[in-house]
Parts: sequence; structure tokens; C-alpha cells
Amino acid sequence: MTPAFIGLDWGTTALRAYLVARDGRVCAVQPSMDGIIAAAGRFENAFDMIVKDWPSDLPVIAAGMIGSRQGWIEAPYCPCPAGLVEIAGALAHLTTSKGRKILFVPGLSYSDKAGVPDVIRGEETQVFGALYSDKGAFLLPGTHSKWVWVEGGRIVRFATFMTGETYAALKDHTILGRLMTKESDDADAFRSGVTRGFAAPELLLHTIFGTRTLGLFGTIAPTALPSYLSGVLIGSEIAAAMRHLGRAEELKIIGSHVLGLRYLEACRICGVAADIGAVEAAAKGLARIADKAGLFA
Amino acid sequence: MTPAFIGLDWGTTALRAYLVARDGRVCAVQPSMDGIIAAAGRFENAFDMIVKDWPSDLPVIAAGMIGSRQGWIEAPYCPCPAGLVEIAGALAHLTTSKGRKILFVPGLSYSDKAGVPDVIRGEETQVFGALYSDKGAFLLPGTHSKWVWVEGGRIVRFATFMTGETYAALKDHTILGRLMTKESDDADAFRSGVTRGFAAPELLLHTIFGTRTLGLFGTIAPTALPSYLSGVLIGSEIAAAMRHLGRAEELKIIGSHVLGLRYLEACRICGVAADIGAVEAAAKGLARIADKAGLFA
Repeated sequence: MTPAFIGLDWGTTALRAYLVARDGRVCAVQPSMDGIIAAAGRFENAFDMIVKDWPSDLPVIAAGMIGSRQGWIEAPYCPCPAGLVEIAGALAHLTTSKGRKILFVPGLSYSDKAGVPDVIRGEETQVFGALYSDKGAFLLPGTHSKWVWVEGGRIVRFATFMTGETYAALKDHTILGRLMTKESDDADAFRSGVTRGFAAPELLLHTIFGTRTLGLFGTIAPTALPSYLSGVLIGSEIAAAMRHLGRAEELKIIGSHVLGLRYLEACRICGVAADIGAVEAAAKGLARIADKAGLFA
Repeated sequence: MTPAFIGLDWGTTALRAYLVARDGRVCAVQPSMDGIIAAAGRFENAFDMIVKDWPSDLPVIAAGMIGSRQGWIEAPYCPCPAGLVEIAGALAHLTTSKGRKILFVPGLSYSDKAGVPDVIRGEETQVFGALYSDKGAFLLPGTHSKWVWVEGGRIVRFATFMTGETYAALKDHTILGRLMTKESDDADAFRSGVTRGFAAPELLLHTIFGTRTLGLFGTIAPTALPSYLSGVLIGSEIAAAMRHLGRAEELKIIGSHVLGLRYLEACRICGVAADIGAVEAAAKGLARIADKAGLFA
């Protein structure tokens, strides 16, 4: 493998630098906690530090929140439908004080029928890294889950679900956390929550209250209540995404190991065909965008 | 009007004492911040203080969280369906150190088809105070909204929605609050949120994210974002309650003035027939329960 470029997956709380071959295979990885919040005001320094051991003549391309208004340079949102051509044509450019050129991948925007906008930034790159045909459905779990649909090689629609952040807010800042003791994964409580959330996603504001009553009535143990609440939210999210965005032949789950497996299990419980997608999808996606942008020409 | 008994509406954060005629008309009211949290450990003292100017020979009956495990004495939940007969038959009794007898109204429990329990405590008394026929649908807004259905003179089902508490947790402890500035009621943003929440209650975890994107894209002003988020949650709640519990001929809204009017407006936006119910419903309900319990015999 010959390194052809440096790829940066630069998000809010973390930065991963990749030394990547032209075909997207990863030669080396350098993780860092210099997300755009921690590195605010010293992005060039954070960049110099993370690439210091790698060849300085390689082109650099970055995806994620580093290209947002709060990042190093803003790469404005590109409207859907958007494929590799549209994304490669909307890269932002920056030259560092040492004369190093860096390309920034734009995020995507999508407006639903009611005209409410939604946005992704970084996930588009992972999706194109995990895409092996011209269509597919992708779930990228996280604080904010992103569900992304690809048709004809382009991202045609997507939706954000605030599942992870809502879970944390409910657990830590409402009555639902009061009965909870030290969290431990409880498969039965999770399954029970997923089943109920999936069966009636419209009742979410009611169903979450079951976390309290099932605890009060002793049906679910205090240590298992977090798993129940998490299950209710994830089950509701899966049902809503399927209804809203359309059933997928097979859902590809991209992202963090633990959370990805939790969603995979939830999909199994709901009877939704799903599989874990490519690893290091960001590096592969950056390679495809770089290629389309003529970086290797 | 001759005072026939003292009624206590004793909740988590507030206590209201009523001097009440036999027919439920209120002769005098005494409000206090001695809810069961503030008055924990000194309930008798709080009681003595609030009734000190009233005749000491009147019978006393109390409803609300004061009859819970965290209250003065536990009046165990009475299962639905439950009418005045069942409630009057399940009152808990306590004699104070001064020899004063107090009756405590039980809360109600209801298990849905999936066997998940739900509970109310205090709302059952307000509902019977506001009931003028043998059936009706009642909404009691609050930190936790309660929707209560009455058929054949008995409460047959109800559901709790954690709308208010979820709103506060999302506003104060997620990214949704970041763009918000000083809250001010914005009728347009509220209407827009209600409409979207009502149209697709199953998408709640997605729709709330619009609070961020509509702010980011400048569609809704920072001061109006809280109204939008509140609207989304309330609209979603109304749609879910209607689907889950059944459409009502006319919904009676019982409860706090400001929040009650906000729900009334939301119902109008959603095309749900609604009206504000009786004031001082708790006192009227206590009178009916006291009468059924033979307190005036």
C-alpha cells in the first residue's frame, strides 16, 4: 500500500487522522481528542501535531464539523440529492501558514415536505465510504442518530433523531433517573423497552413514563431501568425512521462499536434486517471524494 | 354557605386548603408552599398552621401526593375502573396527635394492554369535581400531563405524558437550548410547532431537532424557539392521546391558568374540541367523595 493522501475525520469531540492509499485502504491511523471544541482557536497547531510523522507532500482532505461555521473554514451545506460529483464540486479550500493545502468536505442539507431543514456533516463521507452499490439505507447512531437513504448513487434524503441526547437529558434531569441505580446492561429490560417503543412510537412521551411506574411497582429492577428507557427511545426511533423514510432491504449500521451493536440488537428485536457496515468508512469515503475531485490526477 | 368540611389539595410542591360547603362551593381558600417535599417530616405542623383559623370540629379530607408513600400516610392505588364508590371505599384514615381525624383519597392505577402500569394521585379528585354527566374526557396539564377518560361514572382509563418535564430537560440540557435567548411567547412559532407535532407524533425525536435547524437557518428567531419546541411537544401529545385513548366529544381542560390556556390554544390549532373545565375542581371533587363516604351523614 502506498499512502496517497491524508484524510481527517474531524468532529466535535474527536479527530482521527488517516494515512490512506488511493483505493481507500488505511495505512495508519492517529486518534486525538482535538475535536473542534478542544482545538478551537488552534486548528493549525492541532493539524500540525497530528500529521507530524507523515510525509508533508501528501494532499489533505477533511470531513466533519471542522468544515462548519464553528470550524476552521466553512464549507456551506450542499442540498440533497447529492452524490460524489456534487460533493467534490463543493469542497472548500484553505492554505495553512506553512503553505499546506487542505480540502474540506461540505455537509448536506435536506428539507422535508413541511420545509423544515435537516443537516448532516461528516456522515455523508462515511456513507459514501460504506456504499457498495448505487443505493442503500444507512444508520449512523450517536448523540444524534442520522438515517440516510441513497438512491441512484446520491443521498436523496435523511433525518436526524435526537435519541442519544434525549436519553441523557431524561436520565439525568427528570424524575425517570430518580429510581435508577448504577447502570448495567440488561438484555431483558432493553428488549421490553424496544418492543414497546417500536409498537407505538407516537406514544413516546407516555411510554417513557413506564420507566418510572415499572420501577415503582417493582417489575423492573433499578439497575435495569436505564436499559429499558434506552430501549423505548431506540425502538421508537427505528419505527419512526422506517415509516418516515421507507423500509430498507437491509439497513447498514455505521459507527461506534458499542452503540452500533446495541442498534443491531434493537433492529433484530423489531424484525428489521440490518448489518454492521464498513469499518473506517470515513477514510474510504474521503478516498472516493478525493478521487472524484481529481486529487490523484 | 355553611362550611361542612375542610378539603386539602396537597401535592408535591404546593398545598391548598379549602373551607367547603356540602355542595362543594368554596367558602375560603388558604394557599401554601408546604407541598410534601417542603413539609416532609412535619406534615402535622403544616396541617395545623394552614387550618388554624378555621373551626376545629370540621371533618377533613385530603387528596394528592400527601396520600403517597412519600406523604403522611399511604392510601394504596385503587385500580381502574374506579368511581366515587370505589374511591370512597378505599380512603385511608389517620388521627393526629391532637385527635383530629383526616381521610386520605387513594390514587388510581391503570394497566394498559402491554401490562405497563400508570398512576394518578390527586387528578382523580379534580376529575370528579369537574364531571357533570356520567362520561367525559379530561386533560390535566402539568409537569406530567394526565389524560383521563370517564365512562358510566367511573374513570376507565388514563395516560400520563411527560411533556412538561421533557420540555424543560430538552431546553436546559440539550443542544436545543443553545440558540435560545430569553423566552417570550411567540404565537406563530407555537402554532407551527403544534401543527408539526400533531401531524406526525411518531417522529418526535426527529421533529424536535427542527428547533435547532430552524434556528440555525434563521427561520425562527432565538426568542421564539422555546415556543416552537413547546408546540412540537404539546401537538405530539394531543395527537397521541387522541389515537391512544379515543377522540372525545369535548375535552375538558382542568388546571393551571396559563398552561391550561396554552393547551386550549393547541387544541384549537389541532381541530380538537376543548374547553376549560371547572375552577377549584379539587374542592368540588372532595365534597363528592366526602358525601359518598358518609362524612355528612
